[in-house]
Amino acid sequence: MNRITNLFHIQYPLIQGGMIWCSGWELASAVSNAGGLGLIGSGSMKPDVLKEHIRKCKAATDKPFGVNVPLLYHGNEEMFGMMIDEGVNIIFTSAGNPAKFTSFLKSHGVKVVHVVASVKSALKCEEAGVDAIVAEGFEAGGHNGREETTTMVLVPMIREQVKLPLIAAGGIGSGRGMLAAMALGADGVQIGSRFAATTESSAHTNFKNKLIEIKDGDTMLALKKLMPVRLIKNKFYFDVEDLENKGAQAEELMTLLGKGRSKLGMFDGDLDEGELEIGQIAGLFKEIKPVATVVSDIIKEFNQAKSELAKISF
Amino acid sequence: MNRITNLFHIQYPLIQGGMIWCSGWELASAVSNAGGLGLIGSGSMKPDVLKEHIRKCKAATDKPFGVNVPLLYHGNEEMFGMMIDEGVNIIFTSAGNPAKFTSFLKSHGVKVVHVVASVKSALKCEEAGVDAIVAEGFEAGGHNGREETTTMVLVPMIREQVKLPLIAAGGIGSGRGMLAAMALGADGVQIGSRFAATTESSAHTNFKNKLIEIKDGDTMLALKKLMPVRLIKNKFYFDVEDLENKGAQAEELMTLLGKGRSKLGMFDGDLDEGELEIGQIAGLFKEIKPVATVVSDIIKEFNQAKSELAKISF
Repeated sequence: MNRITNLFHIQYPLIQGGMIWCSGWELASAVSNAGGLGLIGSGSMKPDVLKEHIRKCKAATDKPFGVNVPLLYHGNEEMFGMMIDEGVNIIFTSAGNPAKFTSFLKSHGVKVVHVVASVKSALKCEEAGVDAIVAEGFEAGGHNGREETTTMVLVPMIREQVKLPLIAAGGIGSGRGMLAAMALGADGVQIGSRFAATTESSAHTNFKNKLIEIKDGDTMLALKKLMPVRLIKNKFYFDVEDLENKGAQAEELMTLLGKGRSKLGMFDGDLDEGELEIGQIAGLFKEIKPVATVVSDIIKEFNQAKSELAKISF
Repeated sequence: MNRITNLFHIQYPLIQGGMIWCSGWELASAVSNAGGLGLIGSGSMKPDVLKEHIRKCKAATDKPFGVNVPLLYHGNEEMFGMMIDEGVNIIFTSAGNPAKFTSFLKSHGVKVVHVVASVKSALKCEEAGVDAIVAEGFEAGGHNGREETTTMVLVPMIREQVKLPLIAAGGIGSGRGMLAAMALGADGVQIGSRFAATTESSAHTNFKNKLIEIKDGDTMLALKKLMPVRLIKNKFYFDVEDLENKGAQAEELMTLLGKGRSKLGMFDGDLDEGELEIGQIAGLFKEIKPVATVVSDIIKEFNQAKSELAKISF
């Protein structure tokens, strides 16, 4: 039992990151059923689709689950109102200002967690009155902070200045990673990439298979002149890089990016032309596994590594 | 006792990174006297200067110490021959091919450690027959890998494929960081930035004072079209960024860089025009401290955090 398991009434302080095109009701409910906290990733969903996922998730688990809302895509009171009406009482917001919706959500009994990539944003979260913070490092997949601060550095820096329950994210995909995050002062972890490569992930099989093939150095933070996003280095990535090397500005990059690139890559399985968002840690994955196995492997490795660490003495 | 303390005959598996303009005999001997392994950073030294530092270091400590040799700057047999003649029996090489000097050095009884930033390089080290590997992540100061893999990700990836004693570096500046690195599977840590901001560091006072002022986001990996280097964002950094944003190629960047920028910044104390190389973790430092205090603080925090971690159970 710790501050994170108490806050969400879950068995393990292990949250599944809400990811576009990967984390629908099937993934979220499987993680919650395995003792973690599953999050529906609403970033890729229209309101009606999200409502359906919420209802299916409720039917598939009697454990707590939540919804991740990137304020970049959504963030209107109507959508939050629908979630509240549907009984969602845990919401993770990201990619935006935590002050905007926190008090509204909290007044409706929702537990609010906000994702940050800097100490400054963490301090804003505290002011906004969130219940917990996710500190997400540079190695994380998908949209990312401009400061490029890694998990190893960000977690102790935020821990030192903010007293709220702290969830580490970015670069964590194993029990050893979870243990390291907690050694740094985190109360729990958010794991994304590892769950993208599960049976229950709604990503396209091509994308899942790619995740278990890549090695270290195969992802890179791209599109920094728009909004930084960590992508697998595929044809689209190299097209972006070529333009950037020539000094292309935001407008030209937006034209190349166009619309629907992440759906094309992650949901439709076009590995050349799509945006393939994933974290660096995917280089460690060897197989697509069911969620229950992923969670039990992580907890087993965590406990084993903890015992080994306890023996070190000097 | 573990594989790293045994290899070097030291008390703590804590190595002080060899840094240009910071780590002369005074810093290296102080770290060795405090129970870690001090390294003279030869990258900024001419052979005669290095010889003097080796002799002074021997006079200042009867504990083991070593020399860091960036193969980028040095790397001729004559210089290695001088070190061997002076009785140096621990050499850390970096920024180059480990196959080049390892067997020569080992045939003269030198323990050889090579610094890598990728799994591929780690495997090459194993082939070359080094005694241990330093796995250095993206968050580290100074010259850096092109893969941008962070410590949190790089350490478990190398641990999985290479059996050699493994030293984690990058983003480590406290006992919690050391504990996290060992949770990830490292046998020890190499700490640079924290020792740059000590009384015994040979860096200019202006630079040391800057290190205890900066926050998260105040360093950035720069000059990627030449050789990536992590710098504090000062006037020189922004001049580089402006050129890069306009699509400048290597030649133009080399002209701006010129010669002697790191000496100008770190040794002469010009905070505007100099290159200020430091790791992200410097954002955590609040004061310039003597080496003995830094080492004892790290070990104390390590042991305390280890006890806290041992209590977590689920």
